[in-house]
Amino acid sequence: MRTDVRSGCPISLSLEVFGDRWTLLVLRDVIFGGSRHFRELLDGPERISSNILADRLAALVEHGLLTRSGDPTHKQKVTYSLTEPAIQLVPVLACMSAWGLEHLPAKDPQAAAARVLVDGGPAAWEAYMSDLRELHLGAGARHRPAPHAPSLGDRMAVAARASGRA
Amino acid sequence: MRTDVRSGCPISLSLEVFGDRWTLLVLRDVIFGGSRHFRELLDGPERISSNILADRLAALVEHGLLTRSGDPTHKQKVTYSLTEPAIQLVPVLACMSAWGLEHLPAKDPQAAAARVLVDGGPAAWEAYMSDLRELHLGAGARHRPAPHAPSLGDRMAVAARASGRA
Repeated sequence: MRTDVRSGCPISLSLEVFGDRWTLLVLRDVIFGGSRHFRELLDGPERISSNILADRLAALVEHGLLTRSGDPTHKQKVTYSLTEPAIQLVPVLACMSAWGLEHLPAKDPQAAAARVLVDGGPAAWEAYMSDLRELHLGAGARHRPAPHAPSLGDRMAVAARASGRA
Repeated sequence: MRTDVRSGCPISLSLEVFGDRWTLLVLRDVIFGGSRHFRELLDGPERISSNILADRLAALVEHGLLTRSGDPTHKQKVTYSLTEPAIQLVPVLACMSAWGLEHLPAKDPQAAAARVLVDGGPAAWEAYMSDLRELHLGAGARHRPAPHAPSLGDRMAVAARASGRA
């Protein structure tokens, strides 16, 4: 994380790390879209350019929000994983989703998936964060037992598919 | 609000409106700092430049997050007010504060004030939003009765002052 910052304010410090539209969209695609590779992220719905994606991925690794494994000389072969601080951005993204659903013309299927996330509230976000820990940090990193019910991610995917058929 | 957007995702749409570091810092200073005028905002802790501040204020008005009253030909005399959508960004900023307090080297007095905000949780944020409605939209816009206890804003100010004396 950066230390050459100009303010002690936690909002300002946070924005030094992720206060860039493309940075948060890349994190959204890793957190909610399951994207782990350069090519998948390049194919996201906002059509990020290759050079911006490479720049933002490098910054996310530098700031400790993503780690990369695989062959760093072949960017198509690198797998990106969330760190614990990145996983803890789920509530921030959920609050942004709630605001966007309320005030902007969000459309299906993304709106349907976001509605499941928002309506689930903090308990569902915590469960989703546990799922992300297992997926990105390993089974030992899970903070709570895996639920028997469908995961929030499954329910978001179901809602998105159902909206597409409507 | 903009309609010339490229994605139906509520996070992406939200970031089209406020996904810029300076935009969120200006909103923070209006929401938590009580700044209502160009000169006050220019004196914020991050030393925003005059042209960036003018640009972001114009965009916030265009996007329906701020309204301006007073003499628009004299920018020093204009008073900015939050709209209801802007007031509803309090939970987003609170979640960012929580993340920054946890993961970054936030410093007093801002850290002490943010801790009060974060620890208060959603009920305190709702009360603060009611206070903002009365201040920015008029007494009739308050959604809940004014509390007898010190407001969240008062408690944040007390914590910030106390940390400064420590």
